Amino acid sequence: MFQRLKPHYDSINEECGIFGIYSNETRDIAKSIYFGLYALQHRGQQSCGIAVTYGDRITYLKDLGLVSEVFDNASLSTLPEGDIALGHVRYAISGEDLACNSQPIVFTGKMGKIALAHNGKLINAAQLREKLISENVVFQTTTGAEVIAALINKYSDNDLIEGIKLAAKELIGSYSFVIMTTNKLIAVRDSHGMCPLVLGKLHDEYIVSSETCGLDSIRAEFVKDIEPGEILVIDSLGTHSHYLDKKPTALCVFEYVYLARPDSTIDGCSVYDVRKESGRILAKNYPVQADIVAGVPDSALVAAVGYSEISGIPYAEALIKNRYVGRTFIQPEQKLREDTVNIKLNAVRANVEGKRVILIDDSIVRGTTSKKIVEMLRFAGAKEVHLRISSPIIPHSCYFGIDTQTKGELIGSTKNTKEICDFIGADSLEFLTIPELEGCCKNCKTNFCVGCFSGKYPMNLDKKEIEKMQHI
Amino acid sequence: MFQRLKPHYDSINEECGIFGIYSNETRDIAKSIYFGLYALQHRGQQSCGIAVTYGDRITYLKDLGLVSEVFDNASLSTLPEGDIALGHVRYAISGEDLACNSQPIVFTGKMGKIALAHNGKLINAAQLREKLISENVVFQTTTGAEVIAALINKYSDNDLIEGIKLAAKELIGSYSFVIMTTNKLIAVRDSHGMCPLVLGKLHDEYIVSSETCGLDSIRAEFVKDIEPGEILVIDSLGTHSHYLDKKPTALCVFEYVYLARPDSTIDGCSVYDVRKESGRILAKNYPVQADIVAGVPDSALVAAVGYSEISGIPYAEALIKNRYVGRTFIQPEQKLREDTVNIKLNAVRANVEGKRVILIDDSIVRGTTSKKIVEMLRFAGAKEVHLRISSPIIPHSCYFGIDTQTKGELIGSTKNTKEICDFIGADSLEFLTIPELEGCCKNCKTNFCVGCFSGKYPMNLDKKEIEKMQHI
Amino acid sequence: MFQRLKPHYDSINEECGIFGIYSNETRDIAKSIYFGLYALQHRGQQSCGIAVTYGDRITYLKDLGLVSEVFDNASLSTLPEGDIALGHVRYAISGEDLACNSQPIVFTGKMGKIALAHNGKLINAAQLREKLISENVVFQTTTGAEVIAALINKYSDNDLIEGIKLAAKELIGSYSFVIMTTNKLIAVRDSHGMCPLVLGKLHDEYIVSSETCGLDSIRAEFVKDIEPGEILVIDSLGTHSHYLDKKPTALCVFEYVYLARPDSTIDGCSVYDVRKESGRILAKNYPVQADIVAGVPDSALVAAVGYSEISGIPYAEALIKNRYVGRTFIQPEQKLREDTVNIKLNAVRANVEGKRVILIDDSIVRGTTSKKIVEMLRFAGAKEVHLRISSPIIPHSCYFGIDTQTKGELIGSTKNTKEICDFIGADSLEFLTIPELEGCCKNCKTNFCVGCFSGKYPMNLDKKEIEKMQHI
Amino acid sequence: MFQRLKPHYDSINEECGIFGIYSNETRDIAKSIYFGLYALQHRGQQSCGIAVTYGDRITYLKDLGLVSEVFDNASLSTLPEGDIALGHVRYAISGEDLACNSQPIVFTGKMGKIALAHNGKLINAAQLREKLISENVVFQTTTGAEVIAALINKYSDNDLIEGIKLAAKELIGSYSFVIMTTNKLIAVRDSHGMCPLVLGKLHDEYIVSSETCGLDSIRAEFVKDIEPGEILVIDSLGTHSHYLDKKPTALCVFEYVYLARPDSTIDGCSVYDVRKESGRILAKNYPVQADIVAGVPDSALVAAVGYSEISGIPYAEALIKNRYVGRTFIQPEQKLREDTVNIKLNAVRANVEGKRVILIDDSIVRGTTSKKIVEMLRFAGAKEVHLRISSPIIPHSCYFGIDTQTKGELIGSTKNTKEICDFIGADSLEFLTIPELEGCCKNCKTNFCVGCFSGKYPMNLDKKEIEKMQHI
Repeated sequence: MFQRLKPHYDSINEECGIFGIYSNETRDIAKSIYFGLYALQHRGQQSCGIAVTYGDRITYLKDLGLVSEVFDNASLSTLPEGDIALGHVRYAISGEDLACNSQPIVFTGKMGKIALAHNGKLINAAQLREKLISENVVFQTTTGAEVIAALINKYSDNDLIEGIKLAAKELIGSYSFVIMTTNKLIAVRDSHGMCPLVLGKLHDEYIVSSETCGLDSIRAEFVKDIEPGEILVIDSLGTHSHYLDKKPTALCVFEYVYLARPDSTIDGCSVYDVRKESGRILAKNYPVQADIVAGVPDSALVAAVGYSEISGIPYAEALIKNRYVGRTFIQPEQKLREDTVNIKLNAVRANVEGKRVILIDDSIVRGTTSKKIVEMLRFAGAKEVHLRISSPIIPHSCYFGIDTQTKGELIGSTKNTKEICDFIGADSLEFLTIPELEGCCKNCKTNFCVGCFSGKYPMNLDKKEIEKMQHI
Repeated sequence: MFQRLKPHYDSINEECGIFGIYSNETRDIAKSIYFGLYALQHRGQQSCGIAVTYGDRITYLKDLGLVSEVFDNASLSTLPEGDIALGHVRYAISGEDLACNSQPIVFTGKMGKIALAHNGKLINAAQLREKLISENVVFQTTTGAEVIAALINKYSDNDLIEGIKLAAKELIGSYSFVIMTTNKLIAVRDSHGMCPLVLGKLHDEYIVSSETCGLDSIRAEFVKDIEPGEILVIDSLGTHSHYLDKKPTALCVFEYVYLARPDSTIDGCSVYDVRKESGRILAKNYPVQADIVAGVPDSALVAAVGYSEISGIPYAEALIKNRYVGRTFIQPEQKLREDTVNIKLNAVRANVEGKRVILIDDSIVRGTTSKKIVEMLRFAGAKEVHLRISSPIIPHSCYFGIDTQTKGELIGSTKNTKEICDFIGADSLEFLTIPELEGCCKNCKTNFCVGCFSGKYPMNLDKKEIEKMQHI
Repeated sequence: MFQRLKPHYDSINEECGIFGIYSNETRDIAKSIYFGLYALQHRGQQSCGIAVTYGDRITYLKDLGLVSEVFDNASLSTLPEGDIALGHVRYAISGEDLACNSQPIVFTGKMGKIALAHNGKLINAAQLREKLISENVVFQTTTGAEVIAALINKYSDNDLIEGIKLAAKELIGSYSFVIMTTNKLIAVRDSHGMCPLVLGKLHDEYIVSSETCGLDSIRAEFVKDIEPGEILVIDSLGTHSHYLDKKPTALCVFEYVYLARPDSTIDGCSVYDVRKESGRILAKNYPVQADIVAGVPDSALVAAVGYSEISGIPYAEALIKNRYVGRTFIQPEQKLREDTVNIKLNAVRANVEGKRVILIDDSIVRGTTSKKIVEMLRFAGAKEVHLRISSPIIPHSCYFGIDTQTKGELIGSTKNTKEICDFIGADSLEFLTIPELEGCCKNCKTNFCVGCFSGKYPMNLDKKEIEKMQHI
Repeated sequence: MFQRLKPHYDSINEECGIFGIYSNETRDIAKSIYFGLYALQHRGQQSCGIAVTYGDRITYLKDLGLVSEVFDNASLSTLPEGDIALGHVRYAISGEDLACNSQPIVFTGKMGKIALAHNGKLINAAQLREKLISENVVFQTTTGAEVIAALINKYSDNDLIEGIKLAAKELIGSYSFVIMTTNKLIAVRDSHGMCPLVLGKLHDEYIVSSETCGLDSIRAEFVKDIEPGEILVIDSLGTHSHYLDKKPTALCVFEYVYLARPDSTIDGCSVYDVRKESGRILAKNYPVQADIVAGVPDSALVAAVGYSEISGIPYAEALIKNRYVGRTFIQPEQKLREDTVNIKLNAVRANVEGKRVILIDDSIVRGTTSKKIVEMLRFAGAKEVHLRISSPIIPHSCYFGIDTQTKGELIGSTKNTKEICDFIGADSLEFLTIPELEGCCKNCKTNFCVGCFSGKYPMNLDKKEIEKMQHI
């Protein structure tokens, strides 16, 4: 009935966020998870959940919806006080927007009661699942999290760490996951470090969060990034780490471009700084005469400021975003249908009328939204619209969690810059190159996965092999 | 926040209801399941669910709540048209009133996609679960249904029927369950036949239902009772049966006393007839002088009519039940708290004032509600209140699904009839004996489990063995 | 989207229920109103509301829905503690099922803040409304309650009682209403006494309720019926009464037949007794050979018992009502549509198969439901179905609040008993006569309105005049 | 239970938004209203409503909640197709956050059925209400809209325009209101023009909206501002205007500072331009040495850009706003309580650590939020925080609709700039002066009300007289 608003339908989509706490005292720990998930909501709006350990039991609540929809005082009060808790916000990459796929996954297995929350995407999930099924395991969801859970369970004979290490040998893909048992919290980041994960501390509590903005939400201090390949265990003795096999690091560069919040810092490098620098580089390398420079809200505003700084062209807001557009949204009748974007964005006529506008956006996926935005600016009187994109053209699919649509939908897979510019109707269009974007992130301690731009993925698998795995 | 009304808190509690359809054409089959579940709602009010097979997929919707709460046009419309569908209403015997325990259980295993709905209770669920866990299976619910599912999966190598047979060898307890695959519907009733299950037909569809009233709801005709130990398979070839090992039959006699709807017929014997006969026997064997005879609504009204018929004492309604009391209910403030029963029941002063009243009830569990009802009749002016119970005294726990509370709460476990009468404050009290009750059900084709009355259970296990299993 | 179940769509429909409390101490008075409304829910299921006086303010909560839907702990807690409170359940006679028409009506006028709740129907509401509008009053609802409120306000210059008396001179129709100011509660019953209203007492509180079952719900004792024409004022001095002009009494006889709860007593006469007596009279005057006698649940069960008592034919339940059918209900697909009644009622095959059945119902309005029930009994194997109706044939519309549909829909307006019997498909059909029905109510202190049976109404207006008023 | 998030609790609060359409064809007009209200949601988040004229009837739906909460496909579908429709979003200035106060007010009076929606605040509402009550009018809400409705009704004998003119002579205060009858739409703006109101056109439809961004939402073109004192009538003949008495214009200057959306243009002057210019003026007149200049999101971001432009100090975001904070929000436990602002805002450590920050905000009301923000920036490492406010200090209450709290809460009523700076803990603090702010709005065709800054109000009433009126 409702036309649920696909968040950023014509854009890169987020994955998931994880937030866990280990406390030395029993308290209303679910509420702190709630605040952490609020701060990580941008990483997934389709479902969320919180699991709490109390004594030797784990209970949980999870459902489709935003944190503010699933959790209120009434529902939170059904969760007990506890020592350890784990939360998750989910963006359903595979399109399976089912309640049963909400996380954390909570199960009872050889190591007792366990909750697991996962960020990332396994390439070989289908194969692993097939194999486990042949070994009498049954699956009740279609998540990678359940595959990881079953695999760790299989390999854990009296030693969960050993189980994680053995499982990791079989996992191909991106993953940061957190496991909660009845007496410890274990944070794992894959050896490539494709997804971020950080450790924080507040008084006597340790916190694990997908991004530093989660720590800020409860005023916890940042301790360190969980390192690629690290298995960090938090229990009554404090923290101690084990390590997976070492591999070349390959953090998803889109975390900086679009996924993470600008107030987060990942692997030593500020997201805000990367975005501003990307605007500066666009200005240096792709200049154009214009009257104003503007960004598509919210993620490209910072880059626009950077562009303005270098170019000297005044920064101004060309588009205003409606702050009240919810997840569910009624389709306009036919006459208005083409104007859906009007509900979410509106041009600031005062700023664009008669002006040459440089518009910065973070990426172009299918190109249809960009086309509408350019049209909207022209409708409001813009004389020229020059589009600058703070990331490279995307010709290749992502297999590791970023929802870049199927390759056929990627405008970059069939059109070059000139053709895309024509399709969108802009006066000019430029993208950053891969080296330019990597240059913007030079403070980052890890290397990057730029597979969607280059077609080269960190697993030493070529695309054909990956696709074979995907389509069994 | 809400004080959820435990349905019949001081009474025997229902288990579960199952309703499945195999159709030869693809249609909006979920709606027919919806009507069937409506008719079976009395068997479980805590959660419900519907799973639908379409093509090679199974999808489902299940949640806490009544059928009318979980399903409306909007939610039903999220279920696709299909060929086979399976529904369940659940009463949480174990007190684990969790959304995750809703049924059907839907999983993917060695035999592909399967949905399973279960009515009954396994005695050895904990042991089976432990063993399966040691074999790398993980469990995500605390239901017996998941144990049955995992066990069947384990034993099903290319042959689901063989898997069911092998699994059944290990299952100790009561069960009727229905399995839906992507191309067949399989109904299984345990060899004792402890829980009812019937087959119906409507045009080209086969229907499986816990009770015949479910068939009536869609005007399907009754075909036969699924026999104790029968595995009835419905597929494109029609129906064909396999059989489990033969065992002494032992239908739960409480189906007639309280659980089933009076318009249902179980194993050849009308529930209504049994209830009326039980009233007649009470009148013959436990007569008392009085002005009117009345029943506690709704389940004991029929017995009261039978009592009146034999005794010649006029039948009259002494208590009116509020038809609008919902599942959730606000606790009265302290001053009114003792009168909660006032909201649900009200005495008909015109009928009881100055009268000697014979009041029929179906059973006494803890005795507290009976005490309040007697007090209410006296407050309305009854001169005498003689209680007659259409089933025996209950000194023993039920281990097979009937929620007779823990033994300590059973007033029959520590008090004899005279002492119960004193506690309740009635002028006299009589119960049916076990043979008297069995005599009322003489048309039933199966024998009965009367373990809660006699302490002798159908499994040749003594109570100590059972309790040992229960508390691992 | 929902097909809201019209309660008793093919039957007489209830009007409204009122419940008010005057307390000498400030307390959580809204909760007691809540219990009273629960007990009166059968008088109106479309909307409900509670208004509370605290200090010099009145606040309220009202909405569409059942008491259990509109009020829960969260919503009740938004109402303050207070001294006086007034509640209402509403059945929308006029079909205007709008939230704005929920009662109590709360307004500020010449006499300060006032809440008013009304049971009944004004014949000349439209004319009074027109006149008041010409005097600058505006109306925000389409209720008679708002007309009464505006009229009393107009005539109340410093004396609310005088205002009520002057307003009553202009009101033509049926009404019991209760007015709450910031320091008193005033109960008014029209001079004909068409609608019931009683006074009760509990400790230091006075209670006004449409029926005695409302008093029972909070264990208040019955004090007296508010008399026809009485204006009963409850304030800090206790109770004192004023009187409207005397007129012939004319209580709606349908209160006994169908509207009121059987555990209520109206004007000295038990509703239960009337119903049972009506069954006895049917047996005496309209006997027929048969195997069982049964009633349509719930309202005709009592009459069936009376019929059985006199005729000696065994009483048995022929139809079982589903206790879980909610207000909203999904329409079955086409194939099942004719069987909607199957969801609400199911025949007890064991009782009717091969039997000659006497079926008692309380009234026949359009005849379509009776037709379906007879068909259902035959489908279940009944050999004969003899229908006996515990009230007379209805050839005339009711203008005073009973929803007897428009005259064209009344099967009694165009068909005689024989023709109705043919339409319904019964083997025989008999109605009580007006004198027979009045004889059943001989203990009642007031006379009756039997306009819908006789066409003679208590206002000395003939039907043409009334209809003229209705259609301005 | 919920702690509903007061929108901008420590800030200036919005009033209301109006959106009306007159169409020459019957269509699903409510949907267009829905889009318009979405665009005006920032003007009121407490309740909303839509009324539709169809034939000679008006129906409506209104309730507490956001547009996206009150209206979905199911609820919108209960509104019929129509020719004329009127919508409203409301911010409850008086704190009476009641469902009954939702607008439009729909009533039947001398001129037939009418709906009315109001933006603004009457000073003499209480007196007018008293007088109307003495003339037999009753009031069911506590809104000014109902007073305006009753007054117009009183004065409208066969001529609604005459009624509006006579009513306007008695109304003291700010108001833009729109009246819908069954055949016309009438937009009225008070003679001072205190609240904005614009006319637009789309194909054959006329649209009235509080702001131009409402027109943009359905791609209607801007026709003109409704002039101060104009009564614009839209009917089948097109538009034609009548005029109220001429008075000095006095548009609320806060529309530019905070209330309106930056993409709106009011009385010829772009909101965006005013905000940017206010930043420029702050930079010119209140310079300070610093490393970055930032704005408090969202309303002060534009001014920060203007400040940066003139000062040459780099613009950077110092604070990130969580886009997912809903209206209802759970209070953190005690330990976290002081950090609520952390949930809504988070400092960008990368931008502020070790930096001297100039922070622009639009206004200071109580000062408590500013204090927390300054503290948050210091916690993130800011070396200096210089606060610049793009409007003057507020020593006086607003009586015309802006929720500036009671005077006692206004930090500007008891403290001077230096003392406020100390309270907030900033390194320096400066406000714009009244002439400076007026200079920023020099393109506006109307003059301004700056009463909250100057204590001089447009009505030639001094504050004592106003307060006398307010507290009868």
